[in-house]
Amino acid sequence: MKNDVNRQFRLKARPVGRIKTSDFDLVREPIPEPKAGEALVRVLYLSLDPTNRIWMSDMDQYMPPVELGAVMRGGGVGVVVKSNSSRYRVGDHVSGLTGWQDYCIADEGANAMGVLPQGLPVPLTAMLGACGMTGLTAYFGLLELGQPKAGETVVVSAAAGAVGSVVGQIAKIKGCRAVGIAGGADKCRFLTEELGFDAAVDYKRPDWKERLAEATPKGIDVNFENVGGEIMEAVMARMNLFSRMPLCGMISGYNTDQPMRADFSPILMRRITVRGFIVIDFMAKYAEGAMQLAQWIAEGKLKHRETIVDGLEEAPVAVNRLFDGANIGKLIVKVADPASV
Amino acid sequence: MKNDVNRQFRLKARPVGRIKTSDFDLVREPIPEPKAGEALVRVLYLSLDPTNRIWMSDMDQYMPPVELGAVMRGGGVGVVVKSNSSRYRVGDHVSGLTGWQDYCIADEGANAMGVLPQGLPVPLTAMLGACGMTGLTAYFGLLELGQPKAGETVVVSAAAGAVGSVVGQIAKIKGCRAVGIAGGADKCRFLTEELGFDAAVDYKRPDWKERLAEATPKGIDVNFENVGGEIMEAVMARMNLFSRMPLCGMISGYNTDQPMRADFSPILMRRITVRGFIVIDFMAKYAEGAMQLAQWIAEGKLKHRETIVDGLEEAPVAVNRLFDGANIGKLIVKVADPASV
Repeated sequence: MKNDVNRQFRLKARPVGRIKTSDFDLVREPIPEPKAGEALVRVLYLSLDPTNRIWMSDMDQYMPPVELGAVMRGGGVGVVVKSNSSRYRVGDHVSGLTGWQDYCIADEGANAMGVLPQGLPVPLTAMLGACGMTGLTAYFGLLELGQPKAGETVVVSAAAGAVGSVVGQIAKIKGCRAVGIAGGADKCRFLTEELGFDAAVDYKRPDWKERLAEATPKGIDVNFENVGGEIMEAVMARMNLFSRMPLCGMISGYNTDQPMRADFSPILMRRITVRGFIVIDFMAKYAEGAMQLAQWIAEGKLKHRETIVDGLEEAPVAVNRLFDGANIGKLIVKVADPASV
Repeated sequence: MKNDVNRQFRLKARPVGRIKTSDFDLVREPIPEPKAGEALVRVLYLSLDPTNRIWMSDMDQYMPPVELGAVMRGGGVGVVVKSNSSRYRVGDHVSGLTGWQDYCIADEGANAMGVLPQGLPVPLTAMLGACGMTGLTAYFGLLELGQPKAGETVVVSAAAGAVGSVVGQIAKIKGCRAVGIAGGADKCRFLTEELGFDAAVDYKRPDWKERLAEATPKGIDVNFENVGGEIMEAVMARMNLFSRMPLCGMISGYNTDQPMRADFSPILMRRITVRGFIVIDFMAKYAEGAMQLAQWIAEGKLKHRETIVDGLEEAPVAVNRLFDGANIGKLIVKVADPASV
């Protein structure tokens, strides 16, 4: 599927609530020509992540918001199709911020992309998920900030998502009790039966707080927080003295303009350490983390589930699945078939 | 002023809102006789602290609540007047949890008290304040959790209080910019003119958030948090990337039954480390901390202000000053005159 144009989603309006297709203009531009020191990349797969919603807004955030009229920012993998740079060879697979478009330009400076090694031990899509940003988010957030010790109880919310599913499996590898919180019986079965979580709590059940208590009889030593709001408060109410809470996200609040308020008193009374982080804080250790994750996948200790949506044009609709609770595993948009490029 | 009875404040009802004298029974009991291994202590000074309000409630807390009918828990210093223990000699000054009463029993176990060295380099009352629990709270909270570096900006709320006033002065000793938040022009003048803070922000002024911005032109690297609520949110909104927030207290919420909610999003976006603590977490290092604080006092680098209220019977009324914003420095009740015991 070759295009002779470059389709781009440009941000037209900052979404209010749920993301709408009409918040974007789908424009058709000529395929750009790489200049000296640049390469042209055909985007193959796009990673959809909760942070996309933050970038669309102008809330206080950790990177500049996407400007109105600009191509929507997004991570992805692609293949080099033209190169005027010694850094990139035609045929190389690359990963980085491709944006929501068919083609992007990689350079040797601020817009450089990472060249993936040949003969990857995992599928290319895993470089967006379990071995990519979401896997690394789980890896560094849990191990560096959560500091789980064998025998401790680790709870993760949005547990069936791309980050949460890896968090629980690493907790198991480290000898912890892994408890996931997810919405719906299917997701909960996926966690315990496919991924080996010790317990899964379905927050859509009216008695879910009692279930959480049953699933964490010794309290909670590490809360890997992804959702915020009521779920976060219920988990924090069961956190132990000197427990740790890596704060990875608060997806429940991203579709609102409201401050993401929750009770601070457990932090004081139980002397909890809460630490916000973004995976890029650990950039210097990416290679180490990715190698370890790939090894666990190769050994069968770490499973990864992907949901692949076909077609760039689906991105603005598909990204809502992350907020609707309709997604399991890593959510990816297939922009072009690697075999046909 | 010798008593032939032991007056005790016993908790009658858990306060709703402001503390009332009628929440206590003032009872007159016989002076207890120390058994083998015990000593009788005449209480001299009682420390009034925001945590007293927590102990009166049955909220989730870091020590068991005071039981209804029991003597109100409280820290104090006293003098040994009878002893059947080799640990205590008559005339020794001791500090510990004396309770709100004229006399208490010190033992060699769970109710042991600390024997103060003879020839203290600071007044006895300083052992409740700048060299005692509040000074140590400031010392360990700021240095161990806040980890301030020279040139950084440290903000402390309830800055004219017993803890806050020491936090700002230690920040200055460590080469930081010290900014205090306090209520009223008198307190603010006290901070800048007497204690050497670089700036003080009066939260009772309508433009206080703009003043806070002016006082922290490079943002905030350490927020030593004492009050919670709206003030905490305003400070957190100015905290820098990778800044630290020792959470010492949230006094603005203690008179309510409501969860102490505030916005978590700055923690995520600015990757702030928030850590709750209680001074007893650092018990193993008390001696080191107290010696350093005493040395700074002796060198004139650390000033301490005390407000001393006369008479045990004033305790339940006086403690409200901590919540009314009516207090400067360390709030102490004089139970008996050391010279007359």
